[in-house]
Amino acid sequence: MRGSTIGTLFRVTTFGESHGPAIGAVIDGCPPGIELKGVEIQDELDRRRPGQTDISSPRREMDQCELLSGVFRGKTTGTPIAIVIRNMDSNSKAYDALEEVYRPGHADYTYEARYGIRDHRGGGRSSGRETAARVAAGAVAKVVLRAAGINVFAHTLCIGEVCAREFDREQIDLNPVRCADARAAVKMAKAILKAQEKGDSMGGIVEVVAVGAPPGLGDPVFGKLDADIAGALMSIGAVKGVEIGLGFGAAGLKGSEMNDPIIREKGRIRMPSNRAGGILGGISTGEDIIARIAVKPTPSVGKPQKTLTRKKSSTTIKITGRHDPCICPRIVPVAEAMVACVLADHLLRLCAIRPDHFDNFRAK
Amino acid sequence: MRGSTIGTLFRVTTFGESHGPAIGAVIDGCPPGIELKGVEIQDELDRRRPGQTDISSPRREMDQCELLSGVFRGKTTGTPIAIVIRNMDSNSKAYDALEEVYRPGHADYTYEARYGIRDHRGGGRSSGRETAARVAAGAVAKVVLRAAGINVFAHTLCIGEVCAREFDREQIDLNPVRCADARAAVKMAKAILKAQEKGDSMGGIVEVVAVGAPPGLGDPVFGKLDADIAGALMSIGAVKGVEIGLGFGAAGLKGSEMNDPIIREKGRIRMPSNRAGGILGGISTGEDIIARIAVKPTPSVGKPQKTLTRKKSSTTIKITGRHDPCICPRIVPVAEAMVACVLADHLLRLCAIRPDHFDNFRAK
Amino acid sequence: MRGSTIGTLFRVTTFGESHGPAIGAVIDGCPPGIELKGVEIQDELDRRRPGQTDISSPRREMDQCELLSGVFRGKTTGTPIAIVIRNMDSNSKAYDALEEVYRPGHADYTYEARYGIRDHRGGGRSSGRETAARVAAGAVAKVVLRAAGINVFAHTLCIGEVCAREFDREQIDLNPVRCADARAAVKMAKAILKAQEKGDSMGGIVEVVAVGAPPGLGDPVFGKLDADIAGALMSIGAVKGVEIGLGFGAAGLKGSEMNDPIIREKGRIRMPSNRAGGILGGISTGEDIIARIAVKPTPSVGKPQKTLTRKKSSTTIKITGRHDPCICPRIVPVAEAMVACVLADHLLRLCAIRPDHFDNFRAK
Amino acid sequence: MRGSTIGTLFRVTTFGESHGPAIGAVIDGCPPGIELKGVEIQDELDRRRPGQTDISSPRREMDQCELLSGVFRGKTTGTPIAIVIRNMDSNSKAYDALEEVYRPGHADYTYEARYGIRDHRGGGRSSGRETAARVAAGAVAKVVLRAAGINVFAHTLCIGEVCAREFDREQIDLNPVRCADARAAVKMAKAILKAQEKGDSMGGIVEVVAVGAPPGLGDPVFGKLDADIAGALMSIGAVKGVEIGLGFGAAGLKGSEMNDPIIREKGRIRMPSNRAGGILGGISTGEDIIARIAVKPTPSVGKPQKTLTRKKSSTTIKITGRHDPCICPRIVPVAEAMVACVLADHLLRLCAIRPDHFDNFRAK
Repeated sequence: MRGSTIGTLFRVTTFGESHGPAIGAVIDGCPPGIELKGVEIQDELDRRRPGQTDISSPRREMDQCELLSGVFRGKTTGTPIAIVIRNMDSNSKAYDALEEVYRPGHADYTYEARYGIRDHRGGGRSSGRETAARVAAGAVAKVVLRAAGINVFAHTLCIGEVCAREFDREQIDLNPVRCADARAAVKMAKAILKAQEKGDSMGGIVEVVAVGAPPGLGDPVFGKLDADIAGALMSIGAVKGVEIGLGFGAAGLKGSEMNDPIIREKGRIRMPSNRAGGILGGISTGEDIIARIAVKPTPSVGKPQKTLTRKKSSTTIKITGRHDPCICPRIVPVAEAMVACVLADHLLRLCAIRPDHFDNFRAK
Repeated sequence: MRGSTIGTLFRVTTFGESHGPAIGAVIDGCPPGIELKGVEIQDELDRRRPGQTDISSPRREMDQCELLSGVFRGKTTGTPIAIVIRNMDSNSKAYDALEEVYRPGHADYTYEARYGIRDHRGGGRSSGRETAARVAAGAVAKVVLRAAGINVFAHTLCIGEVCAREFDREQIDLNPVRCADARAAVKMAKAILKAQEKGDSMGGIVEVVAVGAPPGLGDPVFGKLDADIAGALMSIGAVKGVEIGLGFGAAGLKGSEMNDPIIREKGRIRMPSNRAGGILGGISTGEDIIARIAVKPTPSVGKPQKTLTRKKSSTTIKITGRHDPCICPRIVPVAEAMVACVLADHLLRLCAIRPDHFDNFRAK
Repeated sequence: MRGSTIGTLFRVTTFGESHGPAIGAVIDGCPPGIELKGVEIQDELDRRRPGQTDISSPRREMDQCELLSGVFRGKTTGTPIAIVIRNMDSNSKAYDALEEVYRPGHADYTYEARYGIRDHRGGGRSSGRETAARVAAGAVAKVVLRAAGINVFAHTLCIGEVCAREFDREQIDLNPVRCADARAAVKMAKAILKAQEKGDSMGGIVEVVAVGAPPGLGDPVFGKLDADIAGALMSIGAVKGVEIGLGFGAAGLKGSEMNDPIIREKGRIRMPSNRAGGILGGISTGEDIIARIAVKPTPSVGKPQKTLTRKKSSTTIKITGRHDPCICPRIVPVAEAMVACVLADHLLRLCAIRPDHFDNFRAK
Repeated sequence: MRGSTIGTLFRVTTFGESHGPAIGAVIDGCPPGIELKGVEIQDELDRRRPGQTDISSPRREMDQCELLSGVFRGKTTGTPIAIVIRNMDSNSKAYDALEEVYRPGHADYTYEARYGIRDHRGGGRSSGRETAARVAAGAVAKVVLRAAGINVFAHTLCIGEVCAREFDREQIDLNPVRCADARAAVKMAKAILKAQEKGDSMGGIVEVVAVGAPPGLGDPVFGKLDADIAGALMSIGAVKGVEIGLGFGAAGLKGSEMNDPIIREKGRIRMPSNRAGGILGGISTGEDIIARIAVKPTPSVGKPQKTLTRKKSSTTIKITGRHDPCICPRIVPVAEAMVACVLADHLLRLCAIRPDHFDNFRAK
């Protein structure tokens, strides 16, 4: 993956800083003839938008998207789809105090080390705001996947030490943490608020599931499906770990415990125990594709922290302002978007290598 | 990442099946003028080679590499470096019994689902043997990195439930599991042999460390250093999880516990607690880069397993033959190779974006 | 080159149709710290804009560009630079009559054959309007090149049978055909107007020159400098041929006539006869880089033409409306833009492979 | 196009120098299940091989290819196809005299300027020998294309001032210049021998034709079919110009003369005048795809030439040895190979964007 572009055939390029005029995405390679009204994109953006619950940032980002190209009469044309989201509530002033200091856990120092430039306004390109562009692109990917019967969703599995014990997909959108276990959700929300009161923040684990993916997706050996999913998920700001299926749990098992038996069910080849998480040898098995990400606690905390100024003098900062005390609930749509983009890309890549498709193009 | 090629500037393409004539790698984009004798590549291949200890496969793969291009008078020329490794001890006959059956935990079914072709001989392209080509390419990457003062090494952290408690880098190459804790290494080896006796296999965790990387490596937002490392490591056959720094441990922490304080040490900006694993915002901090991978237990086990034939009839198989009861020790050089390739690529990418370098090319 | 993106390190993605809300470009990989005010982009767009002379289309496209990202305090930040140009004078109604008919010489039929979709409004993505986005990106490339002492310009060499016989760079911007020979320019303009009166259009030849390029640009064997320039120039709508140096003229020469003698001049290695056009073996020689393109006559002509409707019935059409009778003068800035983008990309690629640059990143 | 790799889905990487151990190619992305015996590759290599006629170099390169991977039981498996060709008759000694001098018209100086390294042995990577690897890859591409009913061939159109006036495809392989006009072929051969006697060499024009390509191939705006063909053909060493259809001839025409009328023929949409060369808007029309290249005269001439030594002293050289007095006949299979690779890539890219193909992957 290079810079701000991801994908080989379904290629997504994002742009924009948190405090510039706008952020956005260009999706190149989307198949033509797919219905796209714009409202699907807005709906996804609304899910990521802050200010919706008492455990997310009270910032008012309207995240109104505008579709600039690639759609005609409600259908994709096969040409690049450009989406722009204006930055509205971007109060740069709030960041003036930070201009000369590196915030711990943020990318302030590393961006300056790389680019020799300091865009101190809310993290610039490293801001979580950039993920809105990913969500917009992911919305398009989801539409493509739906045309092939594939559905992607995500949910919060753990916040700090509190983990879901039950799974009811219906619950996910009914609670502010986006947890599939209603009771755990209540505890999670409490834990987050408690941390916030103490000027602190929390991490957690989010799970992404793709249902309906056909076997055969993945392009070994470096473009394996799990490799691309891992790369895509790890590219989300706060993510420090990715696992597929049993993931790190597999390290503690015996081979006889880990291997999924292969059985026949309704004429289809199945591996229902699915400890592999729907991927073997980097190629989808036809079972649900399951990935989990470790989300670090929001680095913007009110507690005092030791750091340096740009002139390398020691100082102490407390980050005040409107920050999410836990980013997990809002990472849910972002993680879905990333997995959807990877799957859309691999769906097209699978279509490409089937010589039986050639017949369609033979002169008749 | 596309198919069998990884990297934007330091591009590695591997080829070859376990039971074809040869495997190999082409490295395109290696900077010119770097000393490369060939022996560095052979040394790394020898580290990966099976048959060296009682806990690895007794197969005799000599893994003799031949350098076909890209080197002249002991130095790289800047043109593609092709390396070929002949397959010697590839006993296809041993796999005849497997021709019509899908091995659980292997890529037999998924490869056939994708390509419509069954190359049953030892896994074909999905065989662990393919990683020898990665190790050869990684050896070249290591030489490049060394020229920039960067050093990559890996070691086995856990086998099953047994984990290292001490770290002594010297120990790594002194025991067959490649563990930095000599006492834990003994227990690990025992556990592996015990599993093997029962016709079973074990998984574990391997850690990769890069020392000496400058701050500034990484190409946000999709080509972030951690994203590329995650993708590269997850592309290794048995890997089911990747984490950076505290990784999944970060999910349970508060922000105030996770953030690394930034201090000044000998005039340099440092974050010695390095919970971030040397990467913030997808860009290296200058601290050690630390990644860990979850390695699943070898799927080839002697215990009987339920599965299907290609004609979808139920059957039971026991995998016999010369398989590693635990792949961790031999994944150590492979994981180093992948991280080295990613870092070499990002080192070149960092060189590319510095406009102060332009002056060197101005007509004088 | 894939879809709407060009370049390996200096990557340009364009988007937009002639009659959608906007067109634009995202430039990813631009080095940081380079002065970019926005006015440089507007200046180039103004050069491409129609309606400026009596031999160009009287359409009123203001081509006002907006810089959405990648610039902070007047300097590039190293993050993607997004530029949007709104479509203003896009009278879709004028194209209603064309909805069911394929215009000869246009991409109407081929776009529909590929995408199964007909965007009849002014050619949609295949419209010349798309090149405004290229010009915007090229303006950024030119700024990068200028920082390295490289300057790109183009001029009209021939219109139909009328060719320039003298070269005075000053003249180029003083006449509407952008010809470096003032007298030829007058004849060219006359020929164009005469064709226009007859409801016809004219083709021509445009030459692009890059001055100040250092030796060493080009990435053999497929990323050769001339290969990338040829691909980039041929991607401009009306271009049917590309040649470097003597080009097709070389086919009629003997080796002793074609080879450029190598001499020493002011301590530098020079090949002043420069029949090679500044490129040998796909790598720049340090001489001027010279490319020429064959521009076909505008396919929109008033004369009646035989064609088919979408239902495959024969019909005759006359294209009326506001079309350029000859596109050469307006291709001049587009051709410059494409060569500038390729050179900027190769400049970064050259920076990347120099191991002496590594020292700059060594921890001190 | 980056370094030694070309293609997005059908990706060809070549490696090797003229005087190293071997040259070769890796083809990644070839669809599975296509018959490939190896003999198709050898046949194409034999067509490129020198020493076959009195107008080609008397060097004895056997160009025996070995297939290392990607084929099982006579069919492609979808994994990378590696092909190696050993360098046999590589007499490096012959080049010792050239070690310290730059040959005019060759890439000696530019390679050293770029890489800081001088591999003086027969041009190293810039040698025409590298094209054998392209021909091997092209042979695979041709097999893929044949499965889709597409056929690519090339022929010599002009040698110096002598041009073919008739076209009889049968003739092409019956004369040493590979000209479709038997009488012109005799004159061409004479002209070449005459130049050779005088210690000189000749250039010419080669035409490539693809028959049977469906409409819809090409990926605007930068991955247009003509753009990719132009880039691929220009990447061949001696090529200084590329044109499509009427090419530079189009520059002198009126729009009414250039546009191809669109008619219906046997129920199909046709443009039989095909002045566009089978491509409109960068997408194939379904007519023959026609490209022509300008081939410069071989730079190795026996006549004395002025040049410099590496220490920048003036000198005079005469190139003796076994060189082709005209490279056109041997470029014929190379040009076919490049166009075949581009078409195979675009065929797969076309398959990828058809959403009707998704249905094939829907779980049933």
